[in-house]
Amino acid sequence: MQSVQAYQELFSTHLSSLRFQKEPIGLYEPISYILQLGGKRMRPVLTLMSCEAMGKEPISALAAATAVELFHNFTLLHDDIMDQATLRRGQQTVHKKWDVNTAILSGDALLVTAYQQLNSYNSSLHSDLTKLLSDTALLICEGQQYDVDFETRDNVSMDEYIHMIRLKTAVLLGCALRMGAIVGQASAEVADSFYNFGVNLGIAFQLQDDLLDAFGDPETFGKKLGGDIIENKKTILYHLTIAHANSKDLADFEKLMSSTFDDEHQKISGVKAIYENTDVRRLTNEIVMIYSKNALDALNQSSLDKNQINYFNAFAEELMVRTK
Amino acid sequence: MQSVQAYQELFSTHLSSLRFQKEPIGLYEPISYILQLGGKRMRPVLTLMSCEAMGKEPISALAAATAVELFHNFTLLHDDIMDQATLRRGQQTVHKKWDVNTAILSGDALLVTAYQQLNSYNSSLHSDLTKLLSDTALLICEGQQYDVDFETRDNVSMDEYIHMIRLKTAVLLGCALRMGAIVGQASAEVADSFYNFGVNLGIAFQLQDDLLDAFGDPETFGKKLGGDIIENKKTILYHLTIAHANSKDLADFEKLMSSTFDDEHQKISGVKAIYENTDVRRLTNEIVMIYSKNALDALNQSSLDKNQINYFNAFAEELMVRTK
Repeated sequence: MQSVQAYQELFSTHLSSLRFQKEPIGLYEPISYILQLGGKRMRPVLTLMSCEAMGKEPISALAAATAVELFHNFTLLHDDIMDQATLRRGQQTVHKKWDVNTAILSGDALLVTAYQQLNSYNSSLHSDLTKLLSDTALLICEGQQYDVDFETRDNVSMDEYIHMIRLKTAVLLGCALRMGAIVGQASAEVADSFYNFGVNLGIAFQLQDDLLDAFGDPETFGKKLGGDIIENKKTILYHLTIAHANSKDLADFEKLMSSTFDDEHQKISGVKAIYENTDVRRLTNEIVMIYSKNALDALNQSSLDKNQINYFNAFAEELMVRTK
Repeated sequence: MQSVQAYQELFSTHLSSLRFQKEPIGLYEPISYILQLGGKRMRPVLTLMSCEAMGKEPISALAAATAVELFHNFTLLHDDIMDQATLRRGQQTVHKKWDVNTAILSGDALLVTAYQQLNSYNSSLHSDLTKLLSDTALLICEGQQYDVDFETRDNVSMDEYIHMIRLKTAVLLGCALRMGAIVGQASAEVADSFYNFGVNLGIAFQLQDDLLDAFGDPETFGKKLGGDIIENKKTILYHLTIAHANSKDLADFEKLMSSTFDDEHQKISGVKAIYENTDVRRLTNEIVMIYSKNALDALNQSSLDKNQINYFNAFAEELMVRTK
């Protein structure tokens, strides 16, 4: 097994070698644009890792890794339209730089291009990988729809919220790992273990992201702290507060959320105090621990080689402790 | 071989048996909605036909036919957003009945669902059919982009226009026929012949549609005559006029296109007179004949059984003479 950086470099070199500068440029230029915005390329890295863990050259999983990364960028492109986001990784979103129609059509072409990456595999692998991509893609559409639905609902249970996260973001990590395992000719049992590792890690990561937005270390957390609170985003902390706060805390919380402040920090510190008082911070942290443990258990209980298991456990811990 | 109606019924029964009423309903209801708006189901019918022409039960091509029809409806859903269309088959478009975000996301899910229809085939067929769907889908995205580009260009050549039509609409007819041929285990040569038959027929049909909008028989033409002229749509007739009219006709044409009329018929009859004067009507008719002949030649020159060839020729003629 290699370092995360080594896999990132292997993938980035491959991605740069692909040419999306074709005619009509109105269709392909936005695709090139969003792909070069960068990112940690964590999903394709997972695909390369799980392939190498099966004793196969990671290079053989590059096409599958690319399918996952292109698919991920397709979801970003269309989600940015739906969220009316103006910035993505500090640069203009596609529908801002061009227009909504361009973002819709280029997104469609990017999804199809993701499927096409799998064409280089033999029929049997191609068929398995394509089915996995479709199944995952549909779950992600469902997750996005639940996310939209939850924006206008105030009685979302913890289970519903976690189900949404599982669909919207976690299954793609599972898919990325399973793809590498499939290319590496893993047994169904090992492929399942990788999938469950990825899904549980994805849920833990996403919930921790909600937590860190409020309570993270400004030195290590990549984004601006308190952003979710300022934007009234319905995170796990929000939904748990609505569900568990006593009537006084609830009234205070709703007042804070509906008021405007000259000083943003007043709102942030008020909301954070309620997250502490109501035990919502501690509860969320416990849930993060449970899903992190589920992730590790999925691999620990598999028939995978101990060294490989240790490698993925270390990766997961590295990912989760980034901001403690 | 069976009648077109028999294939339509076989397909409609199958389509109705599929259940798209799943959770979250916000995602799946628009899919059910657009699918039940109906239509002639010409594409899936072609898939069933070419499969049966290979001596295989058409039922074995139902899944492929469904993939084609779902894919087609996905393009309608997203194109209607881009065109800001309010009506589709006399009913509200999805983005009007719901909203743009719903139409984007349900469209994405519908595209993925189209791919999933192919999952029931064995690996080898599944792989071939999926690749064909992806290749076709990307061409169609390119065609849609050219169509958008041409809206703001006034120097579109006939070749460019026909290339756009080929990508945007004709390749899907070719794909539909090739899918049935693949399921029917056709040779590569016969599959190619079916594809070329479909693509050429598609081009002929689309160009004739432009022609009939101006010169069709109101009794038999399905849509309102002169609609393209009223909407200043850049049809083949429009582009040929720009390219071939003398300076007087061109000036008259541009004046007619940029003026507003109390009586629509004044504009329609003025534009039609120019299409006649400039020989654009005759020229377009000749091009339609060429592509119709190309379509028939593609099958006539194939190793397909004579009875089958006659069947498809009769089908093509039936389709093309609908409005003479």
